[in-house]
Amino acid sequence: MSLLIRGGTVVTAEEMKRADVYVADGLIKAVGQNLDAPAGAKVVDAGGQYVMPGGIDPHTHMQLPFMGTVASEDFYTGTAAGLAGGTTMIIDFVIPAPNTSLLTAYDEWRGWAEKACADYSFHVAVTWWSDQVYEDMGVLARERGVNSFKHFMAYKNAIMVPDEDLVKSFARCLELGAIPTVHAENGELVYHLQQEILKKGITGPEGHPLSRPPEVEGEAANRAIRVAQVIGNPLYIVHNSCKEAIEAIARARGEGQRVYGEVLAGHLLIDDSVYRHPDWNVAAAHVMSPPFRPKENQEILWRALQSGTLHTTATDHCCFCADQKAMGRDDFTKIPNGTGGVEDRMAVLWHHGVGTGRLTPMEFVRVTSTAAAQIFNIYPRKGSVSVGADADLVVWDPKGTRTISAKTHHQKVDYNIFEGMTVQGVPSHTISQGKVVWENGQLNVTRGAGRYINRPTFAPVFDAVKKINERRKPAPVQRTSKAAQ
Amino acid sequence: MSLLIRGGTVVTAEEMKRADVYVADGLIKAVGQNLDAPAGAKVVDAGGQYVMPGGIDPHTHMQLPFMGTVASEDFYTGTAAGLAGGTTMIIDFVIPAPNTSLLTAYDEWRGWAEKACADYSFHVAVTWWSDQVYEDMGVLARERGVNSFKHFMAYKNAIMVPDEDLVKSFARCLELGAIPTVHAENGELVYHLQQEILKKGITGPEGHPLSRPPEVEGEAANRAIRVAQVIGNPLYIVHNSCKEAIEAIARARGEGQRVYGEVLAGHLLIDDSVYRHPDWNVAAAHVMSPPFRPKENQEILWRALQSGTLHTTATDHCCFCADQKAMGRDDFTKIPNGTGGVEDRMAVLWHHGVGTGRLTPMEFVRVTSTAAAQIFNIYPRKGSVSVGADADLVVWDPKGTRTISAKTHHQKVDYNIFEGMTVQGVPSHTISQGKVVWENGQLNVTRGAGRYINRPTFAPVFDAVKKINERRKPAPVQRTSKAAQ
Amino acid sequence: MSLLIRGGTVVTAEEMKRADVYVADGLIKAVGQNLDAPAGAKVVDAGGQYVMPGGIDPHTHMQLPFMGTVASEDFYTGTAAGLAGGTTMIIDFVIPAPNTSLLTAYDEWRGWAEKACADYSFHVAVTWWSDQVYEDMGVLARERGVNSFKHFMAYKNAIMVPDEDLVKSFARCLELGAIPTVHAENGELVYHLQQEILKKGITGPEGHPLSRPPEVEGEAANRAIRVAQVIGNPLYIVHNSCKEAIEAIARARGEGQRVYGEVLAGHLLIDDSVYRHPDWNVAAAHVMSPPFRPKENQEILWRALQSGTLHTTATDHCCFCADQKAMGRDDFTKIPNGTGGVEDRMAVLWHHGVGTGRLTPMEFVRVTSTAAAQIFNIYPRKGSVSVGADADLVVWDPKGTRTISAKTHHQKVDYNIFEGMTVQGVPSHTISQGKVVWENGQLNVTRGAGRYINRPTFAPVFDAVKKINERRKPAPVQRTSKAAQ
Amino acid sequence: MSLLIRGGTVVTAEEMKRADVYVADGLIKAVGQNLDAPAGAKVVDAGGQYVMPGGIDPHTHMQLPFMGTVASEDFYTGTAAGLAGGTTMIIDFVIPAPNTSLLTAYDEWRGWAEKACADYSFHVAVTWWSDQVYEDMGVLARERGVNSFKHFMAYKNAIMVPDEDLVKSFARCLELGAIPTVHAENGELVYHLQQEILKKGITGPEGHPLSRPPEVEGEAANRAIRVAQVIGNPLYIVHNSCKEAIEAIARARGEGQRVYGEVLAGHLLIDDSVYRHPDWNVAAAHVMSPPFRPKENQEILWRALQSGTLHTTATDHCCFCADQKAMGRDDFTKIPNGTGGVEDRMAVLWHHGVGTGRLTPMEFVRVTSTAAAQIFNIYPRKGSVSVGADADLVVWDPKGTRTISAKTHHQKVDYNIFEGMTVQGVPSHTISQGKVVWENGQLNVTRGAGRYINRPTFAPVFDAVKKINERRKPAPVQRTSKAAQ
Repeated sequence: MSLLIRGGTVVTAEEMKRADVYVADGLIKAVGQNLDAPAGAKVVDAGGQYVMPGGIDPHTHMQLPFMGTVASEDFYTGTAAGLAGGTTMIIDFVIPAPNTSLLTAYDEWRGWAEKACADYSFHVAVTWWSDQVYEDMGVLARERGVNSFKHFMAYKNAIMVPDEDLVKSFARCLELGAIPTVHAENGELVYHLQQEILKKGITGPEGHPLSRPPEVEGEAANRAIRVAQVIGNPLYIVHNSCKEAIEAIARARGEGQRVYGEVLAGHLLIDDSVYRHPDWNVAAAHVMSPPFRPKENQEILWRALQSGTLHTTATDHCCFCADQKAMGRDDFTKIPNGTGGVEDRMAVLWHHGVGTGRLTPMEFVRVTSTAAAQIFNIYPRKGSVSVGADADLVVWDPKGTRTISAKTHHQKVDYNIFEGMTVQGVPSHTISQGKVVWENGQLNVTRGAGRYINRPTFAPVFDAVKKINERRKPAPVQRTSKAAQ
Repeated sequence: MSLLIRGGTVVTAEEMKRADVYVADGLIKAVGQNLDAPAGAKVVDAGGQYVMPGGIDPHTHMQLPFMGTVASEDFYTGTAAGLAGGTTMIIDFVIPAPNTSLLTAYDEWRGWAEKACADYSFHVAVTWWSDQVYEDMGVLARERGVNSFKHFMAYKNAIMVPDEDLVKSFARCLELGAIPTVHAENGELVYHLQQEILKKGITGPEGHPLSRPPEVEGEAANRAIRVAQVIGNPLYIVHNSCKEAIEAIARARGEGQRVYGEVLAGHLLIDDSVYRHPDWNVAAAHVMSPPFRPKENQEILWRALQSGTLHTTATDHCCFCADQKAMGRDDFTKIPNGTGGVEDRMAVLWHHGVGTGRLTPMEFVRVTSTAAAQIFNIYPRKGSVSVGADADLVVWDPKGTRTISAKTHHQKVDYNIFEGMTVQGVPSHTISQGKVVWENGQLNVTRGAGRYINRPTFAPVFDAVKKINERRKPAPVQRTSKAAQ
Repeated sequence: MSLLIRGGTVVTAEEMKRADVYVADGLIKAVGQNLDAPAGAKVVDAGGQYVMPGGIDPHTHMQLPFMGTVASEDFYTGTAAGLAGGTTMIIDFVIPAPNTSLLTAYDEWRGWAEKACADYSFHVAVTWWSDQVYEDMGVLARERGVNSFKHFMAYKNAIMVPDEDLVKSFARCLELGAIPTVHAENGELVYHLQQEILKKGITGPEGHPLSRPPEVEGEAANRAIRVAQVIGNPLYIVHNSCKEAIEAIARARGEGQRVYGEVLAGHLLIDDSVYRHPDWNVAAAHVMSPPFRPKENQEILWRALQSGTLHTTATDHCCFCADQKAMGRDDFTKIPNGTGGVEDRMAVLWHHGVGTGRLTPMEFVRVTSTAAAQIFNIYPRKGSVSVGADADLVVWDPKGTRTISAKTHHQKVDYNIFEGMTVQGVPSHTISQGKVVWENGQLNVTRGAGRYINRPTFAPVFDAVKKINERRKPAPVQRTSKAAQ
Repeated sequence: MSLLIRGGTVVTAEEMKRADVYVADGLIKAVGQNLDAPAGAKVVDAGGQYVMPGGIDPHTHMQLPFMGTVASEDFYTGTAAGLAGGTTMIIDFVIPAPNTSLLTAYDEWRGWAEKACADYSFHVAVTWWSDQVYEDMGVLARERGVNSFKHFMAYKNAIMVPDEDLVKSFARCLELGAIPTVHAENGELVYHLQQEILKKGITGPEGHPLSRPPEVEGEAANRAIRVAQVIGNPLYIVHNSCKEAIEAIARARGEGQRVYGEVLAGHLLIDDSVYRHPDWNVAAAHVMSPPFRPKENQEILWRALQSGTLHTTATDHCCFCADQKAMGRDDFTKIPNGTGGVEDRMAVLWHHGVGTGRLTPMEFVRVTSTAAAQIFNIYPRKGSVSVGADADLVVWDPKGTRTISAKTHHQKVDYNIFEGMTVQGVPSHTISQGKVVWENGQLNVTRGAGRYINRPTFAPVFDAVKKINERRKPAPVQRTSKAAQ
């Protein structure tokens, strides 16, 4: 079973070059000009197309139990939709309920994910604190391939962790060589605003963004950054959506901190006017946190992505259908939070990024794949087009177009936030573990073919971080006198 | 009983002009050129000198019960020392223990303060939350002349308020037309660092700044600012000491928020090398929070004061003698936090501010007196040289010099953080309530002569704040459909 | 001839208080409660109204010869229109043609201005350089009451000064105790863009903003600031219109520089969509430099005004009628640059500033009058309500409304950029030199009654600047060896 | 002639991995584990060492005629010294005298460089303007492999270009797909300050930094950036040395501009105290522009390098011996500007960058080699360790140490600015064009072996820039009326 991708332009985070790619046994075996196809090898004609690392979506929530229901997209359908869009790996989240074991939750999620048809991995959320949590983090990091722990600074009375525990967990992450990640919103302010808004009689989805204004996100981002600075961690902030968060990250990076930022495809392109849509269902379909923002934030996010203040793109893919959203018909705080996009991220990023000159094709590869692989320490196995890497690839047709719609998408949800958007630039082929699983509009996936990807701790940046932390240690003081008696 | 101050240059926040000032019945009766002295009027020759509003120190802690002891300076000695240095009013703090009544504490502090020899007022701290606290705040604001409430974001397990209560108290302040103030340090991080540092065997005063690095202050300042932004409050941040806090304030003000900042005389002039002094007693004498900072912060503070990012100067005057400091001889976290300065603030600000060109004399008046009076809504009764104002004045000799020393100061504490500093620019006369209480080195004060100054709520800025908050209200949404059933 | 303004609320930059104002001999004689009206005094009932310093417009161009024509508004009509709107003083500009004597030009402008009916003063532009210019600046500063010199960084091939001369003139200003002011636009870029745009066939007014984008202004503002920093000057930047300029000023002020910024009423309220108006005449009527900007700049300007990054408001009142604007019918670069507003500034600032909560009434007084008087060193004679000051006052009716229109305004121009805007807050009375010249809609002015106001050099800030400059001087170096031979 | 580098850790800008590298015919032929050495291949044991792309120094001036003398280091000795330090390519500068042909100068420099023993390329400076310059730029870009043009904003009366020409040259660069580069210092201010300082009697090297303070650099950097923004160019700023420049670049990048920044090894490590050295020769040896800066700038530069605000490291290698420096013994403005370092850059960057945790080894590769190759469009031929690339490599011994000294360095100059610094991390082998030219302390170079490297125009970023520029074009306006007649 081998494959020759012939005649395309290989794009990596560093370069673009005309080259063929030869794949066998699930791995890339050769990259070069004028490669010969062995007998029996399938040949993909990539003429006029780009050959790139398959997308990595570092932020999805397949079949997540949340807010009294369960996300409609499961690991099988979700990874299949991703493959249809050129995304060959997801990093999902294990989210233990407070006071439950991290290891038990981890096992449960692993079980759910066995049906996946593309490779996957897991961040694990720290939603409470105890000695057992401390121990479980060690087991997960050392024995279960987990090198990132997530912290929700919002969702009070549910999965929010207070600063006290945030500090403890960050300190634990540093010991383990794992990177802490945060959902940055000030949960106390959100809670207060929700009550105030409901009191004023605003119960519809328009109340959602009012209860989570950008300053709530900016505050929490800055707080997490300062905690990481004091503890000495690198830090990854998920789904940055607004100027306030970007400024906090840029500031920290300018001061030498190793802070990484993620942005969702949705926040780059959709603004908060959706919450005032006259159709309740449409408005509710966009309820997610952080909410979509006033339009002027979008260019700020794009620029941050280009200039290196932001590093990765994701979707926070977490699907709820209209009947699930309807749980909040009388109270916007009860609308399950989440939107889809795992299938669409690559195309909307290309169209609005590369198509407009905001990103070069190489930058596109970096922000859709390579950076996530590096930060989460699975590069170059993932995120590269190099000999020895997993053959997770996408052949990208820059002339092809698609009009996005819930009617035609592969995602298991009845709404698409990009509905009606015509994009130029689509995957003609997706290759997962060396097999062509998407070819000119046809999906050919295998339930359960996806593998759990272990992510080793102590990514290379930890060496640098360790040296920095050591340099901060103070010299001892020699005293000539003691305290008055 | 009347007084004519003749031949000086009157300086206010707006102008400098040659004028005489006539005082009677404790009030300024006339400001003008060539005023006649009525029969019997005392005449002060202010030739070659400046006549300015007496200093207001908006941040003192006389005889404060704190960390297991009581501050050595009482309301009598403390206000007397202030008068000796040209400060004619203090605003001290009522700090109720958690779970005790704000009103009871207020009455207790009022009792202690009756011996003061200069005018005074009180901020009241919110150190916990309950319905009763909510009610007490109302009584204090409406009936007791309190228009500012203080919140400690540090001192975990003591007087720290968590974000949940901060949000509630800020919202209550807005209802009452009172300004919230914060001590901005992230108490969780401080606590964590204290434990870590003690674990490493660092028990001396050099551990103090290590446990409270600047980012801990910058984080909390930013958090308080964002909370105020969301709730819609003006905000006053006490004792800003570092670049991080200044940047947070500058950012907020640039975004249109009504944020006011205070700086202590000590932070402008003393750096963190003091904590590594070989004499434990010297090092411990400087233990206060936020700690003195790396030297490069000082110019940043001065510039912020000049450019209007900072507004007031204070001392956080809170004195503990060597035997009290010795409570922490084996554990820096037990050294009572506090330093003095109420007597020295005016002179060090003049010498290092006006003397160097960082401040004009008018700016000096604004930052030592006028701004505090305006923010805390007692202007022009205090902080001005105008007809009808309280005759709290200082005659300032720009040629006079003094070498500051604990041996000669009037403060009731055995150490002076400005020890040995020779300043040019000293008060030749201080006038309190129309009486000369300090004249060429002689104090002539009356125990109990000081009055409690009521501060009315709803300072003028609240009108503007109210309009801003109203403009933020969203328009209602018309729905054409409801949620799916 | 005396006047009692009774029952109003006196507003200054520092306070609001109920007080009467008594005026005689052109001066304020008393400010206080329950003043008696002497026999024969005219009494103005200010009940329910504010009594404030008359507006100072520090940036006007009456009857300016410019771009081949002469501004339609002369010193008589212009100052009359100002009085109708509550503005009691203007500071206009003497603009010598290159290679002509500054003194000659000054005398010419003085002659033109003799017909003014309100007080006025002159900035003088430095449009070229020679030893004679150097000498003339000295005469103007020492003997003609000029304490500010203007520099155009744009208008290449006309009045633009290159950096070489800018540096020389700034250095000369420092010697004289005069403040340099700049029109900040990069004239080389403007010229380049004009040619490019004309080449593309864009000849209409929409080409105007394209040829002067915000970065062109931000660059020049920053350049002038850095030159002032190096030379050691305070600096005043006229008509800041965009984020880029505001950021440059905020940065400099944060670094301790004495930089002052002005904003025009028009830039606060009008955006660049006007240049794309289908009616050429409407579009052309808005041609001025810097042009009106994209809307998002407006809130930035308001916030800068509130937070103290900007200090003064002006109009750049420079009127050209439709037939004059038509000179550029085939080439936008030939449309005479200028718009009016001297009559409207106070009202639009009040309505959109105080009415919305962006400014308090005290801040309104500061930015419309007091700050200009202080920066240009005529305070408290102008810009205050204090005994001894010139009786230039406005009685402001916060309930009164007016709909602005070229049909009804007193300005001598056929267009009004605020056409159709209804403002709440209007002057019921304007008092100039102690006389009521505007009363409930009736103008009663006297041609030639206006006086030239000398402005002394070495404003108080120069003392501080001098000390700062002295502190920058390096210590001498002791060498132990000399250069190799 | 082939070579196997065995057992090392290959480091690129993206990854670190254990791999052997096989080289033949001057090219990298294979990168992989356990490669076999063909018969006759030389084997280099890289065990415990790093194998990295050879350094590229994008800023040198070999044998430059400047300020009345000629730099002591020629193309042969300079490239040899580079090889001894692990630098395998330089990009030098053709600097035509004003009013001389760019092509003639180019040919002259090409002749001088024929003796080089390592590969080289040329930026060409635009020092004046005419139609011929415009034409010559086209020939150089299209036919001579020049894709970058340099502009000196300082050196008035010599090679400084005024803004007028800067604008024209930037516009020409955009047409040609070449990147403009600038030496950013405001030459008018420098000239003014030089005269002022000499007038004060300061004639020694301590006058040099006084005449070129950081604000002079920050201003020019910002100006060049804004010009590039308006014209629509990418931009490369050489030798950024201070906070002011860094802030200008960070701002521009945050706004989406493609601005690249270079920093010199010297500015990262040496401060301005050197100019006050008691030995005139030592002080003069450090005279270069921009000068070394106050120490606090160093950490700012390091952080900018880490966070991506700066991209490349260089040396501005331009050597003058003590007798040449002595030309300015009576006037610091006549001391030839320049210092060395081409041999030391890699080692000091490693020691102070990687050794301290400021940089990871991958970041080291990026900033010493890869980024320069990409920006100047010769990647992956240079700056990579990949099959097909030129075999310009360095084997880096992280345990090896060297004490830098003029007594032992290979540079042809009698002073070393890093004199006495002991660094850990040195090249054990340097490979140039596939040959080992430096091996454990022995140089084995061939005069004239170096090749001129053509650099193609229209680097990939130009596609993005072109799209951005197109998006800025305004829509046409439809007019309903024309100008008044």
